[in-house]
Order: sequence, then structure tokens, then C-alpha cells
Amino acid sequence: MRIFGLDEARVMALAAGVALGASGAEPPDPAAAAHIFARAAWSGIAEPGDGLAGLLVTELGAVSSLQVLHDSWTPRRISALIRERRGAGVNERGAGPARGGDEEFETTLQQGLERWRPRLVLDDVVRSLLAAQRVSAKLLLPSDPLWPLALGDLAAHTPIALWWRGTPAALRAMPCSIALVGSRAATQYGEHVAMEASAGLCDRGFAIVSGAAYGIDGMAHRAALASDGMTVAFLAGGVDRFYPTGHDALLNRITELGAVISELPCGASPTKWRFLQRNRLIAAASAATVVLEAGWRSGSLNTAGHAAALGRPLGAVPGPVTSPASAGCHRLIREYDAECVTNASEMAELAGISPHPTGLNVPAADGDAGAGSGHGRTSDQVRVFDALSARAARSVADIARRSGLSLSSVRGALGGLGLEGVVHERESGWSRTT
Amino acid sequence: MRIFGLDEARVMALAAGVALGASGAEPPDPAAAAHIFARAAWSGIAEPGDGLAGLLVTELGAVSSLQVLHDSWTPRRISALIRERRGAGVNERGAGPARGGDEEFETTLQQGLERWRPRLVLDDVVRSLLAAQRVSAKLLLPSDPLWPLALGDLAAHTPIALWWRGTPAALRAMPCSIALVGSRAATQYGEHVAMEASAGLCDRGFAIVSGAAYGIDGMAHRAALASDGMTVAFLAGGVDRFYPTGHDALLNRITELGAVISELPCGASPTKWRFLQRNRLIAAASAATVVLEAGWRSGSLNTAGHAAALGRPLGAVPGPVTSPASAGCHRLIREYDAECVTNASEMAELAGISPHPTGLNVPAADGDAGAGSGHGRTSDQVRVFDALSARAARSVADIARRSGLSLSSVRGALGGLGLEGVVHERESGWSRTT
Repeated sequence: MRIFGLDEARVMALAAGVALGASGAEPPDPAAAAHIFARAAWSGIAEPGDGLAGLLVTELGAVSSLQVLHDSWTPRRISALIRERRGAGVNERGAGPARGGDEEFETTLQQGLERWRPRLVLDDVVRSLLAAQRVSAKLLLPSDPLWPLALGDLAAHTPIALWWRGTPAALRAMPCSIALVGSRAATQYGEHVAMEASAGLCDRGFAIVSGAAYGIDGMAHRAALASDGMTVAFLAGGVDRFYPTGHDALLNRITELGAVISELPCGASPTKWRFLQRNRLIAAASAATVVLEAGWRSGSLNTAGHAAALGRPLGAVPGPVTSPASAGCHRLIREYDAECVTNASEMAELAGISPHPTGLNVPAADGDAGAGSGHGRTSDQVRVFDALSARAARSVADIARRSGLSLSSVRGALGGLGLEGVVHERESGWSRTT
Repeated sequence: MRIFGLDEARVMALAAGVALGASGAEPPDPAAAAHIFARAAWSGIAEPGDGLAGLLVTELGAVSSLQVLHDSWTPRRISALIRERRGAGVNERGAGPARGGDEEFETTLQQGLERWRPRLVLDDVVRSLLAAQRVSAKLLLPSDPLWPLALGDLAAHTPIALWWRGTPAALRAMPCSIALVGSRAATQYGEHVAMEASAGLCDRGFAIVSGAAYGIDGMAHRAALASDGMTVAFLAGGVDRFYPTGHDALLNRITELGAVISELPCGASPTKWRFLQRNRLIAAASAATVVLEAGWRSGSLNTAGHAAALGRPLGAVPGPVTSPASAGCHRLIREYDAECVTNASEMAELAGISPHPTGLNVPAADGDAGAGSGHGRTSDQVRVFDALSARAARSVADIARRSGLSLSSVRGALGGLGLEGVVHERESGWSRTT
């Protein structure tokens, strides 16, 4: 038996090389191997965010959809197969193709087939699987227990598969993660803010998700590692070729202690489009997104836009209004309803979840609520205290005249201030305690 | 005839010394003089924000309410008088005393009488009027066309009168003013932001309202003066004794080019309570309040609280999250729904009004509900009238330069003012009719 024209044993060996093997257990059976191989192939055939590919894989399954592509079925025949499967209740999701009638769907499908077919090169798939095996990259499928369920909010744009290197604990930490993103061209201020935010959130038990870029992203990862926190980097290219290359050492450390993830197969290079699509994964995978420092047109605003579109809590850290490097953050607060967050405690609150703190720095409830009202004094007390002197003792009548209060109000206020210990009575009257 | 035990001629002379005399015109008649004297007295008897005093003056009028205080009427008799006046439809405002029944009101009134009586010292009133006369301070009454109508939003807490020194144009500019406030302990960043905001708003035609304190307030005033803008300072003590003393020169310049205002009579010293109540005037008098830099417990948050309570637009300028001096601004954005504003343009947008962008800051809009626009004059007429003198005759070209209007606009405005009879042409040019 052959699968997509490849020898079954070969497919099984390749699949075993990238299968998660969560419990260290047995290699995949032929059906599972074909499934792994098909998803791996699709991850290289469809560009990230290709909703039509997502739809086809959902409707027909990865193997069948790859088979019909491999066997050059016509759009009409594929469309008929989808209808048939639906009629048979094989797929109950109801994510429908033929919204505008079959003809329109077939035209769309024709365009899809045209862009996928040139990329269905089995040798390329094999090469990417072997490359993955060389760096111990694994393939994560939506059916896997470690799959980040939050990605499901991307609907048809959910990735078909994820490639990743790292520790399973990092994947398990995703539900309690916060995305910290920002400009590559960060200022000292921005890097300081990123460091404090990342360390503070790690202390509170959050994992830090970011994009491994220079500047803010890099600092967020580094501070997490330095705080013994968990951190996950989403890349726009294959996980075998770290980008940017200057972050090679950093990404190696993230691989050892956290995870590096991409929806692109090994060997794939990052492109502008892939960076933008990578941003949607950062926003979708984390419980909240915080932009730490961003210029007016920073790419991190794209991540923020994805977070907002997904209904994820979105925060932005303000900075000096004189710094163009913070203009994007202020823009998010003003125009995109991002919450103004100034420290890790407020970011944790933004996420609206409380992971178990790792033990060191449990968030402290800071300060009380009363703004500017002195020391919680009543207005009478404020006025009476105003009317007192530290040197001269004053009679109650004198204080009443000076404060414009009645005698009884003055007496009441003096009582309270006396309990506070800030006034006292002498023979000649009342004065402030020095 | 005697008024409050004083000789009528004396009261008339004192009143004439502080009366606005808008058109340079005739001194107040005996009734007007008594009214001026009574409001002046009340401004020293009731502490700022004394709602009961405000209610009494509203119900009975300043003269009668002072008379009953002077004649030591009982609460019951005063209460009966109020009912009688209401019944007679003399006062139709319906601001009611006897909410919790007459007895409760009489108890409240008793407390009021107790706190007011020790302060009803006619010599003090006379002294404050003479002190006002010495520094050319005038008394502004709610019935005056120059009275800032926006203060009416303070309801029972509207000041009974305002003492002020400066130019009438400053009072007319109030509807198009923005309050710029912040910490005394300002950083270099905060002062820079204050300077840019104030200058930028003046360029857009806004007047700048603030509290003349060290730090942000002072910088806001200074930058307005330096930009040929209009600026108004509200003080917590009498306008004859500038506070802080280190801002003596600044306040003198504000008096020359803008206005210094207080609800307290000359001779009154600032107290903590009076600062808090002064803040309500800053918030109420301006179209929007912006906090430029403020620590977590800055007094400027109190002004912000008043603005929010009054439903006035409230803005705060963010700063570095590493700077405690900006913590109050971030707090306002987070907890009090203040809008994050980063430059003068955004502050102008916050205020939601667009004055004519000129160096002179006269409120726009001919059809503008009359607030501050003088006597139903067009804005051109207001500006031309401002540019005229009662003594010196000025050429049309000179008036054009002073008012910032074109020659034809000046000629048109002079025509209207001529019909109104308030200006006339001599051989050497135009002057106000005295």
C-alpha cells in the first residue's frame, strides 16, 4: 500500500519522527501516520491564515483533502464530495462551503487548487519532516491534548498544525499566558518596562508569549527566563531556522526551558505576510495582549488588532508623550479602547485569570481608594485643622469663627482630630500637636 | 436711612468702589449698593461651598438674608419668611428648604446661623471692601453679564459672588477655556508637557484656567502669557494677597493680561479647605479639565473629581510608568475614565468646542446662546470693543491690529457698536462712549 504515492513504511517512519509521543509511547499506526503526514504537508502548502484550506481540511479531513489535491480532482467533484459527506453526517460542524451557491464556491475552490497544487511537492514535505527530526521539532495537531484550545477562536483561520520545539509544560501553560509585545526599535524605557512586566507576571504565575523579535519581544522573553518563568515564542518561519539570527542563543534557551512554535514547516522562511499571520497566533494563544512600547505604525499594533478582533483583553503601557516610541500605545488607548496598564499587577488584572503564583511575589493589594481627601478626614475636620495653629492655642469660639463652623461642629471635629493625635487641648485652648 | 446699621452714603461709596461699572457708567443706586454690600459680606461670612448659605441667599436675596442674620431672627421666623416668599411667588426657583420637614430644616438653619453670626462683623466687611478698592479688585455678581454662567452647574454650591482683578476679556473667554492642572512637585517632563499644552491651546483660541500653584499650574499660566494667550487664575484666598508669594510677579502679569479670581474677600487667607473648594471653581468654570502631571495623591485629582462630578470632559496626560509623578494621571485614565490625551490637539478635541484660533481667545459663535458673548454682540464686535479705550481715540488700523481683525471686519463691527451707542468717532479716531 502506498500513501500519496509514497511507501507506507516510509510515511510511518517520517510520521514517527515528528509525532508527539506524549507518553513516550508506541509509534503511530498507518492511519495516524497518514494523518500526521497530511497535516504536515498542508502546513507547507497553505499559507498561514488560508481560510479555504482550513475549511477543506475541516470538511474532508487532512488526508482526503490532500488526496483530492494530489489526484487533481475538479472543483465540481470536490464540492460534490463535501455535500455527500455532509449528507452522510460525517462532518457535523456545518462550516459551509456553498454560501453563494455551488458555482461561486467552485470558483473559489478553483483558485485555491491553483495556489496549492504547485506547492504539493512530496519531496518538500519529506525534506521538512527530516529537517524537523534533526532539531527534534514535533508536530502538534488540533486533536492533541497539548493543542492550545484558545486557537479555536480563529475559526476557519485556526492553523492546520503547529510545529514546535520545547517542553510540554510550556504548552500546558498557554491558558495562563499573557502576550507581551512591542517595537523592535525599543528605547531604554521600553526595555525597562518590558523587563519589569515580564518578571512581575512570571512571579504571578503567568507564562509570557511573544515573537522573539529584537527590542521589546526579546526583553520580555529574557526577563521571563531570568525569573525562572515560562515563555513561548511564536515564529514566522520554520522552528529549525531561528529568526532573527541574532536571537539564536535566546531562542535556544527558550527551546530548552519553554517552547518555540510556528505554523510553518521546517525550512520555511519568514515573510512579511507570515509575520502578520504569526501575530494572530500570539493574540489568540494568550489570555491577554499587552503592548509595552510601540511607535505610531509599529507591527505590534497588528497583534493588538488581532487581540481586539478576538475579544481578548488588550492593554497598552503609556509612556512619555514626548517619545514617538510610545505613540502607538497611546493610540491604542485612545482609538482602540486598550486599557492603560502601568505594572504587572494591572496586567494580571487585565487578563482576568489568576494562575497559581509560583510562590515568590504574591501580588499585594496596593493602597486604599480615597483620592486626595487628606487622611480620610471629614470636611469639618479639614476645616477645623486649617483653623488651628501649632504655636497659639485657640478657643472653640475662635476656631468656630475661623473655620466658619458652628460650635458643636467644631467640638465634634476636635474630638476626631484628638483621637487621631494631631491636636490637643491646653489650658488656653486647642492647638496642633507638633 | 441706614443699611445694616451703616450710613447709606457710606454703603454707596463702598459699593461704588468695587462695582464693575461695565460701561464706566453711573454709580450704583441705594438698592444696588445694598445688594453689592450684602453679597460682599456673604462672601466673607459663608465658607466656600456652604450650600445652606447659597440656598438662603437664593431664597431671600442677599440683602434680606443678611438682614435677618444681622437682626438675629430665629430659624422658625426665617423659615416662615421663606415659605411666605415662596407662597407669594417671589422666588420661583423651588430650591426647597424643608425637605425633611420644617423641623429638620430649622435645625440645619440653626447650625448655619451659629456658624455665620460670629463672622458677621461689619468692620470686617468694610475692611475687605477698602482692601479691594486699593488693588482695584471688583465684585462680580451672578446677575452681571460677565458672570461665568457655567458656574451655575454647581447649583447650591455656586459662589455667592466672585472677587476679581484683570481684564473683562478674560471673563468673556471663560466659555472657551480649558483647565490645565497638575502637581506642584512637577518634573521637567511635566513642565515641558504643560508648556506645550498651554501654548498649543492658546494658539487654538482657548483660554487657560489654572490655580497659580508652583509646578504645573504656574507653567500653564506662564506659557499662556508667553503665547499672547488668555489665562485666568483661581485663588483660594483674597485677590489682594497673592499666593504662593513666589508667584507674585506671575500673578501681577495675569492681572494685567488675564484675570485673577476668588470667591473669598480681600484679606482672606488660603486654607486647605479653601483650596479644595477653589478646585471646584476651576473645574466648573472651564469647558474641560486636563491633568498634566500628578502623583498618586496629588491635589489636582480633586479638581479632576469635581470635573467628573460635573460631567465636564476630563483628560489626563500619560507619562512614564516609572515616574511616580505621573501615577495620578494613569490612575485617572484607569479608574476615573479620564481620556488619555497626548497633545494640545487632542485636548481641544476633548473640550468639544472650537473657538476662533486667534491670539486673543475671544469665544466664537455669534449665535452662541449668549454665554460670555457680551450683550448679544458678534464676536467681531466683542473683539473690537475690547480693543477700544474710553480715553484714547484709536484709528481703524490700530483697532485692527489690536483686535487681530481685518480692516473691513473692524469697520463692520464699529458700525454695529455705533448703533448700539457704545462707541463713537472723534476727529482722531474711535473710542468707547463713556
